[in-house]
Parts: sequence; C-alpha cells; structure tokens
Amino acid sequence: MPAPRQVSMAVIGAGGVGKCFLTQLHFLASKLCQSPSAPIYLSLIYVSTSKKAIYHADYRSHSNWDSELQASTTPPLALPQLSDYLVKAPGKTVLVDNTSNQEIANAYPDFLKKGISIVTPNKKAFSSTYQLWQDIFHAAANGSGHGNGGYVFHESSVGAGLPVISTLKELVETGDEVLKIEGVFSGTMSFLFNSFQPVAGGGGKFSAEVKTAKDKGFTEPDPRDDLNGLDVARKLTILARLAGLKVESPTSFPVQSLIPKELESCSSGEEFMERLPEFDGQMDELKQEAEKGGKVVRFVGSVDVPKGEVKVGLEKFDKSHPIAALKGSDNIIAFYTKRYGDNPLIIQGAGAGGEVTAMGVTGDLVKVLRLLH
Amino acid sequence: MPAPRQVSMAVIGAGGVGKCFLTQLHFLASKLCQSPSAPIYLSLIYVSTSKKAIYHADYRSHSNWDSELQASTTPPLALPQLSDYLVKAPGKTVLVDNTSNQEIANAYPDFLKKGISIVTPNKKAFSSTYQLWQDIFHAAANGSGHGNGGYVFHESSVGAGLPVISTLKELVETGDEVLKIEGVFSGTMSFLFNSFQPVAGGGGKFSAEVKTAKDKGFTEPDPRDDLNGLDVARKLTILARLAGLKVESPTSFPVQSLIPKELESCSSGEEFMERLPEFDGQMDELKQEAEKGGKVVRFVGSVDVPKGEVKVGLEKFDKSHPIAALKGSDNIIAFYTKRYGDNPLIIQGAGAGGEVTAMGVTGDLVKVLRLLH
Repeated sequence: MPAPRQVSMAVIGAGGVGKCFLTQLHFLASKLCQSPSAPIYLSLIYVSTSKKAIYHADYRSHSNWDSELQASTTPPLALPQLSDYLVKAPGKTVLVDNTSNQEIANAYPDFLKKGISIVTPNKKAFSSTYQLWQDIFHAAANGSGHGNGGYVFHESSVGAGLPVISTLKELVETGDEVLKIEGVFSGTMSFLFNSFQPVAGGGGKFSAEVKTAKDKGFTEPDPRDDLNGLDVARKLTILARLAGLKVESPTSFPVQSLIPKELESCSSGEEFMERLPEFDGQMDELKQEAEKGGKVVRFVGSVDVPKGEVKVGLEKFDKSHPIAALKGSDNIIAFYTKRYGDNPLIIQGAGAGGEVTAMGVTGDLVKVLRLLH
Repeated sequence: MPAPRQVSMAVIGAGGVGKCFLTQLHFLASKLCQSPSAPIYLSLIYVSTSKKAIYHADYRSHSNWDSELQASTTPPLALPQLSDYLVKAPGKTVLVDNTSNQEIANAYPDFLKKGISIVTPNKKAFSSTYQLWQDIFHAAANGSGHGNGGYVFHESSVGAGLPVISTLKELVETGDEVLKIEGVFSGTMSFLFNSFQPVAGGGGKFSAEVKTAKDKGFTEPDPRDDLNGLDVARKLTILARLAGLKVESPTSFPVQSLIPKELESCSSGEEFMERLPEFDGQMDELKQEAEKGGKVVRFVGSVDVPKGEVKVGLEKFDKSHPIAALKGSDNIIAFYTKRYGDNPLIIQGAGAGGEVTAMGVTGDLVKVLRLLH
C-alpha cells in the first residue's frame, strides 16, 4: 500500500468561477482522502482575491476558506513572494488561477519552472504573445519541451467545461489531420444572435437584444467587451495554436467588431448603449439579406488549418446547420478532420457560467493529480 | 534529463480496427522516440490474429508487423501463456485488445493484476456480468479499488473515438449530478433511420434500407446482429455503470429488438433478409404515426439515473430535436446534468469505422503512457 500523499493547493480568485471551484474542490478532496488504498490529502494553503488573502507561514490547511477570507485583512502576496511561498510547501503544489489577469499569466513560466503545476481558465496566458505560449509549454512537463517543471492544463479557456481542448489535443496526438475548426465560442454572442434571428423567425432589434443580454448578466459589465470580438479571438488563437499554427496574437488575424465605427469613441458603456439603437437599421439589413437566402446570421470563429487562416465575425448559415439551430447561450464547436470526413466531430453545450467553467478546472486538477505520482 | 523509457506493446487483433491502430501506433512511436528530453521507445513485442501471431522469445521489436504476420505460421499464444510472456517483457507492458472476444475480456483481471495495462474497444469486457466489471476495476490502478495493477481505458467501447466515456467520467468525478443520458449509439441504426425517415420527408421501405446498409458494409455480416439491439444495450450498460448504476447485464433491462417475432426462427441471415419485406407495413405505420405528430422515429438508448432505468428501442422525436437532425451514420450522445441544466452537453460525430475507433484506442494509449512514469 503506497504512503498517503499530500498535495498543496493555492487558489487565486474566489469570485464567480473561483467560488464554484472551491466548492468542487471540497467535494473532490473529501473523496480523495477516503480512497482505501491510495489516499491523497489536498491541503488548501493559499486563497486570494484581488484585495486579500489567507495563508499560514507553516502551511496549515484552511478548512473554512469562505469565512476566513471574509475576516482576513492580509493583502495578497506579490507574485514573486507567492512563488517563494509555494515552492517550499509540503508535497507537490498546484496553483489554480481563476482570474483573467495578464500579470499572473505572465508569471506561469516561472511557477512551472519551479515545479508548481497550474490549472486555469485564464485565456490570457494562452492567447497573448506567441513568446508567452512558448515559454509556458517549454517549461511545462506536459509541453512541447517536455520540461522538468509542473504540469499545465487549461480546458476551461475555451468552451468552459466542454471537452474542447482535450479533444483537439487527442486528434493531433493520434495523428489525425485537423482541416477546419468552426463554431460559436461565446455564450454572449450565442444568446444575442439566437434571440436576434431565431431559426423559427421573429427576434427583436439588435440593440434591444444587447440590452436584454446585459440585464440578464450574459454580457460583461460593459457589453463592448463582448461585442469587440476579442474574447472569441482569444479562444481561436488558443485552438489555432493547438492545431499547430503559429498565431502571433489575437489581433494578428481578421476580427470583426460589432461596435459601429461611429461609436468607437464613446467614453462609457452607458453612452454606447444609448446610441446603439441608431445602428439597428444596419443589423436589420443583414438579417433580411440572410433571410432571403433561407439563412440566419451568427457570430462565429473559424480556423482553416491547411491555409493557416483564422477569422472571427458574422457569417450566414442554412437554417438546418447545427450552428443555426443552437439554443440559449450554448457554444458549439465542430472539428472537421481527415478521419471524421464530411460530418464533423461536434461538441455542444453551455460554454459559460461559474459551475461549468469550474468543472473544467476541477477536471484538469484530477488530471494533474493522476500525473503527480 | 530522465533516462529513456521502454514500453512493451502487445496487440491482439489486426483486422479493421487493429490495422488502423497499428498504423496510428507507428505514427505515435516515431514521435515519442524523438522527444528531446523524455523519449519513450514503444516496442511491438506481440501481434496476433485469431489464427496466427508474431513474437520473439527475446522480446525483440517487430518493425514490419504486416509482412511478418502474413509470413507467420506460428499460432497465437493461449491467454495464460500470453500473460506469462508479457509479464516478463522489458519495461512496462500495455496490451491492446482490438477484438470483441469475450474470452479475452474475461482474462482482463488477470492481466491487470500482473501489472499489465489494457486499452481496448472491446465492449464485452465492460458490458457482460457486473462481476467481471467489478473484477476489472478492482484490479486496475485507475479503478474503484485503486489496485496496484495496470491501468485500463476503453473510450472506444462507446461512440468509437468520440470523447463520451472520458466526459461522463469527468462529470461524475467533479461532482456533477448526471440526470439522463440519451442518444443514438449505433452507426448502423443511425444510418437506417436517417434513411428510412429523413426529417425532410421521403425515405424508402425499411427492408430496403436494411439491404442498402448491408450492401454498404454498415451492418454486421448478419444484419440481425445489429437489429436485435444488443450492441446498443451493451453501450448503455457501460454508460449506466459509469454513472453509478449497478446494471447486472445488457439483458437485465428493456431492449426492443427490430427482428419481428415471426422471423426469430429464421435459420440464416439470408432467409431473414428475404422475409423482412413482409413486415414493411408495420414499420410504415410507425413512420406515418410519427409523421402525423410532426415527428420522426429513431432507435435510441437512454439512462435515467435517478430512477435507475435503462432502456433501448424506438422513440419519436420532434423534427427540430438534435437526435432527429442527425446525418449519415453519426452517433449523438446527450448528457443532461444538474450543472448543464435544460440544454444538455452534446457530443456528435462518427461512432463507427476503423480509423475513428482506433483513434480512441490510441488516445487511451497516450493516457496510459503518461501515467506509466
């Protein structure tokens, strides 16, 4: 019978996704420590928000992170100090970054080199400069360089908990030829266009649908952060790189912004929302043009691997196309490959939300724990 | 830099799936041995068909398995002898069972206990008696008993290379509540009903569609082996067990056979095919009844986890339902869970064929190699 193993856990971010993750972590930890033959003890040694943190110099585990964090007056550790703290923690260490912070992402190579594994939904780590991508996967034990560092997994950086990244990796690793990746990669854009132009007909004015989406909490606080297409561009950058393309950044290929040129200078989200109805006519034209051909408009991203082309923007789809038939705020991702032929491998479902995003992170943690013998 | 590792590979079955797998193995091996920092040498020490085998007493690797196997006059090793041979092989050993043989499946617990890992699309290992299921996962290092044995993976036992089993496992492991699993689990049944009653209307007589499917090679040599529903029942047994239900066998729940009672006594597949048109009237009635309600008939399987119910048979679906809109011989699997809410997590694509089935096996092999440090 092998000796019980201890794994130290550090979690940055305790908001929407972070909170759900910490609940799932509690569930996972209680199962793992009960394994009759190979128990693993997950010890929560660090939790931080942007304002405060909880941790002990002697690495004691926090069993009531929620109340302890509320009561805490300790500021979070700066990244170099966090790295020093974690490297001396008992057993192996896993850092869970539930933020979308670029500065933390930039520090991944350093953490990985020190043997700290990382699981994260943080898109910025994998969709910023190609240099950062290379540095991360050169340092990681499961990267191209097969370094001696920690492991890194980021399933939730595309499609939340949907098995998108693991599936793409497997296609590539087993020698399939990925020809095209296409889909709806944003829950916000999915909801907007499924409401703006439902397959069954009808739908409201575009600005009204944006307002509804904002009111339902389906957009960022400032909807321009969804409408500029950058979120989708980041996800396409990640998928294109996994498929073997050297995409320099999410702004190095054509991305269609749904922010009208005339509104680019708006000084606030409020002003933008007030003026958006002026442009409903343009969107209605698009809708009618698609309708004439028996089609609907959707905001999609695609990667043409052999051509090395990535693009993000509006496209028209036949009403019988799976992308047209999407519901609610679901994502859909289609992999066209040599093996799968004319009918792609399709993955579909909720691609946003705390619980499903956290599920991808927790699933990645399970993978890391299996590898950390 | 870690020392290069050698892993011994034994492959049973070199027909449709086996041949594709061996080609993918060649691709994988050539990549793994080139890793600059952590090369792995996959050594092919045994390949067998039902009639002959190739292996060397000194465990030399076979680099031209195809021609060597053709030239071989050596019979395959009996399972106890194979087990003895493999247990003494250099490095860790992985057995790839590309058959659908029950006798080989019954020997899995023995292989696993001896530290031999198994990857396989063989449904019979996981859908026969519950006792065999328990014995396998008690012995396996990645099973419920966390034994000290080999690892076992069987992604291709449901939906070929589609990420069905890995996704279900992750939902369960991360604490989601799986409520219902529903889908089309047979490429043959998919093709038959997509042709018999297309959403757009039309379609031929049922017996004619069976004949077309048989001529195209989409059915077993004897189509009754598809029409009896047992193949789908085996897949549902596997998924239900993974979701936590103690399903005793694939015949312990309701399975609708499409073999008319009157034809159960046919002595041959030919006689069956000749007489099947007598029953086209019954199938046409079903079709018209569905059509009246704006629906189509499909052959599906489902697991209701809270109720502990598994069933396989014909059901009607609205024409807008993803199951109705399936194309060709694609499979579709929908997971309804607490986290995913009203809109299920859906996986869709080719669920049969040598290349995609082998891909699931090769993907599993990659997982095992990661775990075999």
